[in-house]
Amino acid sequence: MLTMLKDGGVCTPKGYSAAGIRAGIKASGNPDLALLKSEIPARCFSVFTLNRVKAAPVLYDKDVLEHADRISAVIVNSGNANACTGVQGYEDSAKTASLVEEALGLAPKSVLVCSTGVIGHMMPMDKMEAAIPRVVAELKSDASESFGRAILTTDLALKSFAVELHTEQGVVCIGGACKGSGMIHPNMATMLAFITTDVVLPTDFFAEFRTNIDDSFNAITVDGDTSTNDTCILLANGMSGIDYATLTLTEQGEFRRGLAWVMQDLAKCIVRDGEGATKLIELRVEKAESHKDALKMARFIGTSNLAKCAMFGEDPNWGRILSSAGSSGVNMIAEHTDLYFGEVQVLGGGRPLECDKEALHAVVRQREYVVKLVLHVGDASASAYTCDLSYDYVKINAEYTT
Amino acid sequence: MLTMLKDGGVCTPKGYSAAGIRAGIKASGNPDLALLKSEIPARCFSVFTLNRVKAAPVLYDKDVLEHADRISAVIVNSGNANACTGVQGYEDSAKTASLVEEALGLAPKSVLVCSTGVIGHMMPMDKMEAAIPRVVAELKSDASESFGRAILTTDLALKSFAVELHTEQGVVCIGGACKGSGMIHPNMATMLAFITTDVVLPTDFFAEFRTNIDDSFNAITVDGDTSTNDTCILLANGMSGIDYATLTLTEQGEFRRGLAWVMQDLAKCIVRDGEGATKLIELRVEKAESHKDALKMARFIGTSNLAKCAMFGEDPNWGRILSSAGSSGVNMIAEHTDLYFGEVQVLGGGRPLECDKEALHAVVRQREYVVKLVLHVGDASASAYTCDLSYDYVKINAEYTT
Repeated sequence: MLTMLKDGGVCTPKGYSAAGIRAGIKASGNPDLALLKSEIPARCFSVFTLNRVKAAPVLYDKDVLEHADRISAVIVNSGNANACTGVQGYEDSAKTASLVEEALGLAPKSVLVCSTGVIGHMMPMDKMEAAIPRVVAELKSDASESFGRAILTTDLALKSFAVELHTEQGVVCIGGACKGSGMIHPNMATMLAFITTDVVLPTDFFAEFRTNIDDSFNAITVDGDTSTNDTCILLANGMSGIDYATLTLTEQGEFRRGLAWVMQDLAKCIVRDGEGATKLIELRVEKAESHKDALKMARFIGTSNLAKCAMFGEDPNWGRILSSAGSSGVNMIAEHTDLYFGEVQVLGGGRPLECDKEALHAVVRQREYVVKLVLHVGDASASAYTCDLSYDYVKINAEYTT
Repeated sequence: MLTMLKDGGVCTPKGYSAAGIRAGIKASGNPDLALLKSEIPARCFSVFTLNRVKAAPVLYDKDVLEHADRISAVIVNSGNANACTGVQGYEDSAKTASLVEEALGLAPKSVLVCSTGVIGHMMPMDKMEAAIPRVVAELKSDASESFGRAILTTDLALKSFAVELHTEQGVVCIGGACKGSGMIHPNMATMLAFITTDVVLPTDFFAEFRTNIDDSFNAITVDGDTSTNDTCILLANGMSGIDYATLTLTEQGEFRRGLAWVMQDLAKCIVRDGEGATKLIELRVEKAESHKDALKMARFIGTSNLAKCAMFGEDPNWGRILSSAGSSGVNMIAEHTDLYFGEVQVLGGGRPLECDKEALHAVVRQREYVVKLVLHVGDASASAYTCDLSYDYVKINAEYTT
């Protein structure tokens, strides 16, 4: 049985410790250096940004992971993305990893590096060198929150979550933390997510992880911009002593559901805390030809400024939803399509229905609701998550002038 | 030699007359019914929305053009898009065409119908029936402006333009009018464009027209939403007595440049008059692998909310431009890329340059400027045009509640 754990996070599974401190990278003086460590090397699954402009730490981590599938620690700084910093930027990432490896007495190439913050500034390596021994000294097994706070940039809320699964062989845990897209300072647009588990996972579990990425972090959108630093890392150290491969089929299914739960909850936290966001909308596409189609259409609608402005204005504007669906490139037949806001159906077979206007407005006035399109061209479904587009989004992203 | 004609428009080429009147479709009482007529059937080239949700007049026109390549008139109403109106909507478009054909004594299937306005409302056919004889009676050969005004919805400015070309055989003209995306009332998001010429054009000129569409109307973006009614129609009635095929190669080139000029000027007018827009930005991509790549990247950056907010804030935020370019799916090498705001280079070989901050801010404070990316991976170039994302965009699209 899966259970959510109160105050859970990356340290919830067995054998993980973490820390978060002030290194002085951020002008604000908020915590900006975080460390996550596994007692023994953990199998590492990772997905990085598809942006052709990749930040130095992304390039560094990809190089490390070409030769290693186990990792002992991840060092994360906020306040500087170390992106568009050339060869020096790469060397700074490598140096950061080395400093952590030395301080922890670890083998070379056993530490990953993540950065988030301003693009185009060199890393303040003097501050990093001074701070790394301190963050190592701070490592604790109950520091999920410190870790989660130090990776934030302008996020308003901590994004930390964990579940436990009781199996016949004992308990396994999945924990996670992430940061989202609070971009009050320009050039900041990074999604970083860290998931930990104490189960033993086989290398071919990557396909499952990859699918979960598509249905969680890849299913959310705040403004359609893909950052140079996006990273999601799953560490599995096996310290529960339980091997995924030896779980019953039902338990394996439960574990996968637990992982999906952690990843989707963290992803929704990012949308809820999107820049200027006042609402979290689930865009659900049902009876599409394929899961890929359903997700593509749901994501496409999630990036429509017109639809997002209507959500902000609490306007149940089905014309914008339908028009956006039609231009998503996904197969649909307008005359077969049904559309719902919450439980209220507004469109049947492509034509407007007489509906309860009061009930409809009650739906769109909620802070969270579901917009559902039923295409009737297949059997596949998917959801994407988006926030509304508000004055504050424009304010946050326009008012700062370099 | 190509010359721009003051106050030119759809009636500038020989043999075209037009009219624009108040039919009472719009609650505002502004002109809302327009008619464009050619003295003799004109060869018709057309491009319609790719949205899978197509409005009734788009479906009707596509049916007509399957069997005819010459058209005598186009009737256009604003205030109602006749979209998501099912079989009745299609019949209303067909009826509208018939009424115009009867009033003008034309053969069946010789009139096209365009609509723009609210989605999901039935056409007020009683008003159309009463108004069609009046709009026919108003036809004049100097009514470019009346036509141009009656097709507008919430556009702030008339969008009308014409050029003339002096050839060895005499003068040929190209005129045009369009409406853009002023969407103060929700569900309105239509681009309609009408181009006229008095030259004789061969049917295979469509490829040239199609290319021009990509570099003009398809190269602009206000908010990335494709409407259900988008239509661009080019009429060539040949009444100058001059055949394109008999022009010298130089003159043919000039004619094509003239057509591109008319279409690009109209397209830029739409962006300049975009919802809440305060700036018109040309996004220029040079030295890409192909024209298609260059255009794709330029358009992609043009839809980045982050980049558009920075433009509104007059922030020369190169990180957002580069990050958006990198996620456009187009081949580029970050380390080879140069970036300019106007004449000021901010990035060389992917790395920030020390540049004149004063000069840079002077560029982004202008109402119109160019952002240029040089990729150094090929020899192809293209431009896209976008406006900034302002508070007023959100206001216009959020504050109306159905």
